[in-house]
This record gives sequence, structure tokens and C-alpha cells, in this order.
Amino acid sequence: MWERFVIPVITTFGWVPPFARGFVRDLRPRWAFEEVGQPYEVALITDAKTPEHRRHQPFGQVPSYRDDIVDIFESGAIVLHIAERAAVAGAGRLIPADGAARIRAIQWLTAALNSVEPFVMALAINDIFEADREWSAARHAKVVEDLDGRLADLQTALGERTWLEGEDFDVGDLMMVSVLGGLRGTGVLDRFPALATYVARGEERPAHRKAMADHLATFEKPFRTEGSR
Amino acid sequence: MWERFVIPVITTFGWVPPFARGFVRDLRPRWAFEEVGQPYEVALITDAKTPEHRRHQPFGQVPSYRDDIVDIFESGAIVLHIAERAAVAGAGRLIPADGAARIRAIQWLTAALNSVEPFVMALAINDIFEADREWSAARHAKVVEDLDGRLADLQTALGERTWLEGEDFDVGDLMMVSVLGGLRGTGVLDRFPALATYVARGEERPAHRKAMADHLATFEKPFRTEGSR
Repeated sequence: MWERFVIPVITTFGWVPPFARGFVRDLRPRWAFEEVGQPYEVALITDAKTPEHRRHQPFGQVPSYRDDIVDIFESGAIVLHIAERAAVAGAGRLIPADGAARIRAIQWLTAALNSVEPFVMALAINDIFEADREWSAARHAKVVEDLDGRLADLQTALGERTWLEGEDFDVGDLMMVSVLGGLRGTGVLDRFPALATYVARGEERPAHRKAMADHLATFEKPFRTEGSR
Repeated sequence: MWERFVIPVITTFGWVPPFARGFVRDLRPRWAFEEVGQPYEVALITDAKTPEHRRHQPFGQVPSYRDDIVDIFESGAIVLHIAERAAVAGAGRLIPADGAARIRAIQWLTAALNSVEPFVMALAINDIFEADREWSAARHAKVVEDLDGRLADLQTALGERTWLEGEDFDVGDLMMVSVLGGLRGTGVLDRFPALATYVARGEERPAHRKAMADHLATFEKPFRTEGSR
């Protein structure tokens, strides 16, 4: 869309263990691409800790992104770039053109990444990655208490609205729904029915369903490296 | 600067306990304002958990920000807005005009908030706020190990450069230096001398020194509410 022969590329894993499927952050750029109707390619890697990949993603994670003008990492920045580049090309469905609405969308994107995701990740780290540590069971209740505090605040802020800023879905909602999607399977959102409805509303969007299907399909076929950076 | 009679306002605490002084996130917009030469006002509050303040900051934290066009929270979004509004007014010292350089600056701002700060905060939470919990001592080494991993990666990414993207300081550096400044007093950066030098370079900028001095001066005088929202 943004230029006829420029197909942006994201790099992500060709294989992840079953518990991680549906949670890897390549879902975020995939979803953004689908929302704006931008074709993209995926380069699959086995190991994000190589010096080769770290030249694109210094923390040895996925996704990374490149197009004809830039090579970046961080799902938040990638999603914002996809939204902004699409807007320049006239497909401004993810980032508002109005200055105030635009910065408020970015505010929610930032809030998802800095004020909500650390609490979501703390639960996953404690209950999955540190499940065998001596402190994990004792600490669980405090991690849940802190997370619940954030979710209660967020649910109050959402109020009766369809999306965080009203009737229009934007990058702030994309990121917040994606971050809250990290709680899938934990039962935590059962305590926050308005947030659960909000997440379901986001995940039912055709663009999210396509992104998730493509993400999961990666793991249905034998992995081979389709490209390299 | 951006319009003659428009003075933006940030809301922050009029008093914090001594251990928090020098760390409250109003430092971030203060620093950005000083970098671009924009006068601002500060509205001081006692309690961020009130329904009144939560209408501006749903998580009951500081800072929040308002000007003639927008009312926002999240230090990352506030700093980006200050940088962008100054750039429009011709004071483009914090955000590059070039599209690729601009999104890379935002990439580092996002990385500071999502890939580094959660690990910095985990140490503060474990060692200060959860110091009296039964798991705190046992968990300390793991929290430090995870943090050190991120800092080692970041130090490699910085390499020999003055700032993250080379010779020019931008919002990505402002946020990264501010996040790493959260380690002041812990001794952690002693293990990462290039990062320690980078943080010192940022904190020695006249704009940072002025912002820090103004922040600390708040606590030198008896607190009274100077404004309300």
C-alpha cells in the first residue's frame, strides 16, 4: 500500500513452545498491518540471541521490523510506525489525524506498555518462568493484588465506552487489547467483566482474527528458515 | 514558546518522602521543557488517588499534563508531545525531523519504558517496597540477574556512541537516561561503566540540571497546594 514494491518485513520465531503460541509480540505488527490493509512478509528465525539478530534487536527478542526507510525494534514503535506510514498513504484508520486525538492515542499505547504490561508480565514471570523458585508461591497473591489494582483503574477509565477514547479504534486500543490478551487463560479478567468484553471486542475484529490465524499457522508446519536478516 | 499566552501545566506531588526525591517522574517533562526552552507551570497535589486527579491520571500517579489543546498522562507520551509541539514551533531539538530518525528516537523512548524500566522498577519494588516481605531477600539475586542482562545488552547497543543514535541527543536518550537514573544509589551501574558515563553525560546537560534543581526545590519549602485541576 505505502509504495507499490515496498513490502515491509517483520522477523519473528519459526517455532515456540505451545504455551507461548498466541502470545508472541509479532501479533502486534501483524494486527496493525491487517487493520490498515498493508501486505507484509515474515522472516522466521530459530534463535533471537545471535549477534546477527541482535544487530536489529539488541535485547535478543522478537519482533524486529524493516522497510525501505527504517530498521526498528520494539512492538510499540513498530505499531506506531505502521499506523503513521499508513496514515500518510491515506489509510489513517489506526492513528487519528487530529493533533489532540493523536497524542491521546499514543498516551494509551504508552500506558499499555509502561503502566499495564509490567504487571501482566509480572504474573507470567512469577507463575510460569519462576514457578520453580522458592518465592513463587508466596509471592503470587501480591503479584495478583498489584495487577488487579491496575486493572480496576483501567476498567474505571474505560467506563461505558466502546474503545478507550470513544467510538474509534486506534493504536492505543490495539496495544491495550494486545497487552490484556497476555492474561488469556489466567482467569484474571473474569474479575473485570468490562475489560473482558473490551478485549473480546478487540480480538473479534477481522484484522485481529487474521493476524492470530497467521501467527498460529506458523507453528502448524515444519519450521524452516524462510528468510534471514 | 509555542503560543505566547499558553503556558502548559504539569501536576505532581508537593511533597514526597526523602528516598523518592530525585526520582519522581515529573522530572521527565521538566527536563523536556528545559531542553526546548518552553516555560511551564507546576500544579502541586498532596494525593494522586483522589477521584479529581484520577480524571486526569487513571492510575492515580504523577505527572499529568495539560495545555490549550490536550490533557494527557504517561510521562512517555507527555515528553513526546512536548518534543513534537516544540518542533512544530521551530525548536526541534528533541525529536528529529527526518522520518527514519524520528521513529528510531521513538523506538528508544519505547525501549526505555517497556524493555528497561520494568527491570529497574523490579529492583526498587523488591528491595524497597517489598523489603519486608518473606520473599524479598531470596528473590534479590534473580531480580539483579535479569536487570544486569538488560543493561549488558543496552551497553552493547550503545557501543562507542555519545547518544543512542549517534551525535544528537533526542527524546530516546532523555527517556533512557531518566529510566537508568532510577538506579542512582544502587551501585548497579558500577558494573556497566559505559552506561554510567552515558547517564552522567545526560544528567550533566544544563536542561537536566535545571529540571532536577527545580524538582528538588519543591521539597525545600513548606508544601501548599499551588493550584488544582
